[in-house]
Amino acid sequence: MIKIVVDAMGGDNAPSAQVQGAIEAVNERKDIQVILVGKEDVIKEELAKYKYNSEHISVVHASEVIETSEPPVNAIRRKKDSSIVVGMNLIKKGEADGFVSSGSTGALLVGGQVIVGRVKGVDRAPLAPLIPTESAKGFSLLIDCGANVDARPNHLVQFAKMGSIYMEHIMGVKNPRVAIVNNGAEEEKGNALVKETFPLLKECDDINFIGSIEARDIPSGYADVIVCEAFVGNVILKMYEGVALTLLSKVKKSLMSSLRTKIGALLIKPALKETLKSFDASNLGGAPLLGLKGLVVKCHGSSTSIEVKNSIIQCISFKEQAINEKVGECLAEKDNIN
Amino acid sequence: MIKIVVDAMGGDNAPSAQVQGAIEAVNERKDIQVILVGKEDVIKEELAKYKYNSEHISVVHASEVIETSEPPVNAIRRKKDSSIVVGMNLIKKGEADGFVSSGSTGALLVGGQVIVGRVKGVDRAPLAPLIPTESAKGFSLLIDCGANVDARPNHLVQFAKMGSIYMEHIMGVKNPRVAIVNNGAEEEKGNALVKETFPLLKECDDINFIGSIEARDIPSGYADVIVCEAFVGNVILKMYEGVALTLLSKVKKSLMSSLRTKIGALLIKPALKETLKSFDASNLGGAPLLGLKGLVVKCHGSSTSIEVKNSIIQCISFKEQAINEKVGECLAEKDNIN
Repeated sequence: MIKIVVDAMGGDNAPSAQVQGAIEAVNERKDIQVILVGKEDVIKEELAKYKYNSEHISVVHASEVIETSEPPVNAIRRKKDSSIVVGMNLIKKGEADGFVSSGSTGALLVGGQVIVGRVKGVDRAPLAPLIPTESAKGFSLLIDCGANVDARPNHLVQFAKMGSIYMEHIMGVKNPRVAIVNNGAEEEKGNALVKETFPLLKECDDINFIGSIEARDIPSGYADVIVCEAFVGNVILKMYEGVALTLLSKVKKSLMSSLRTKIGALLIKPALKETLKSFDASNLGGAPLLGLKGLVVKCHGSSTSIEVKNSIIQCISFKEQAINEKVGECLAEKDNIN
Repeated sequence: MIKIVVDAMGGDNAPSAQVQGAIEAVNERKDIQVILVGKEDVIKEELAKYKYNSEHISVVHASEVIETSEPPVNAIRRKKDSSIVVGMNLIKKGEADGFVSSGSTGALLVGGQVIVGRVKGVDRAPLAPLIPTESAKGFSLLIDCGANVDARPNHLVQFAKMGSIYMEHIMGVKNPRVAIVNNGAEEEKGNALVKETFPLLKECDDINFIGSIEARDIPSGYADVIVCEAFVGNVILKMYEGVALTLLSKVKKSLMSSLRTKIGALLIKPALKETLKSFDASNLGGAPLLGLKGLVVKCHGSSTSIEVKNSIIQCISFKEQAINEKVGECLAEKDNIN
């Protein structure tokens, strides 16, 4: 039985999306137990709306909620009875295997490092969202998009390895192609960080390093694991959202511009909707925070029950595939070599 | 009379798009002279296809061509009789005011610095393309997207000032809003470079600094001048291209998926085409390389005659508005204060 903690209080649609996602997960898979953490009365009221096997869902009370606007370090330190701190302590004590939250990214990153703690050998825990691409699987892993910017070359090497392990064993991408984000394909391109990291990645025989990737080639799915420093990762992730939103709003406006286009729009609507769904990151589940003693999954603030359910189910393979052990071994081996 | 040199040999559609663009420019504006630089026989053969006032177009022979695949420093050093080196020397000698090329970006950046030279007080010459956004004017200036990565804070401050001057005096954006690319809107966000640069920009009383901009808000036109280090600028520019291309190819596929959608596609096609044109950077003309003694404009490798023509006409305001003098004064004043 795999135990997954769900933060019932974090996110724009909390607690309803979180509770519903938990119930859908336990109804789909018999091998999991979900522990909902948050205000007990609120959660129980929500649970009362559904039919489910009560052996697979339990509630742990937490009286406080960390808001996304709060400075994360302070929030984690002061709100000891918040759903994030209480939930992460369950992971720390070994009472659960994974933690799923749609709450404050900053608080999850801080809590992940200070409460859950890093696997031995891991210097930084990267946040690694799946992004929709035209690769065979329909997505790639962008690592790191976290809050710790200005990474060093050895951090990026660890990201490449952790990302590879995740894509291979959790997402089922065989021998994932790893590339480093660069400002050109030529060997002499790059900023100081990339130039230092490139030869280190080339030396790694435990990853399938294919060289540089220009940002233009990210959406086309040229690589499965896209390695970059967190500031750049943040720009990539947010350009995805920004360009897609602006472009689609322009397309929509043009579809509403005349009677002729309105009729055309009616005809194409179902097919177009299906297409755009494949380009919507929220269908891909939450972003794992890798390299921790236990999986922490950050869902979108706006996540629906489907994303919460998918993220819970993601945790099962994480446990079954013993990802933390694999990460620990992989990074420890490297240390021995150096 | 304003004199503009056009590199007739650079670009995928050279020399035909370059020669045609030059002719369209002199037919539209009586106050310019275009000097076409490149292989004389090839250019003359192309010119013979058009009617134009021959007093406004001349040809300067250059026997060599720098290919985009050549390492730029070597190319500029060795190919003394290339269209780029010969053209830039005309600027250097004061025989022309601006240089327009669709050739190798790297060679233009190197040539701009070593042949044309920087305005006194300018530490780095940034490449600053206009990108399509939902701002009132329909575009913003992204500065820097050049080859010199790992900028220092004082470089970014200079970029902010030069970008402001360009947007105000050339593009007609009154009191342009300047923002620095950051990984969050909060004051404590940023990498080391942004954290150091932010207070310096805040102190500048000659620009309209509005704070940080997240990449998500770039396409929506939240700022007119978007300041960033060149590696990040490259990622932003190429994500624009990459996301738009992938998204549109997905939309096109879905429009061709059934008879129903095909009929719909026919109805929306003209309106959609118009919309997408407004999102196509090539309609915005070339990217200026700012801070040089003379304007150098880099057009897309794939530019058509329209982009070449627009870039030539851009040079007129550059001269008329005495941009170099304004840049020189603005950056010199700053030096005096410090």
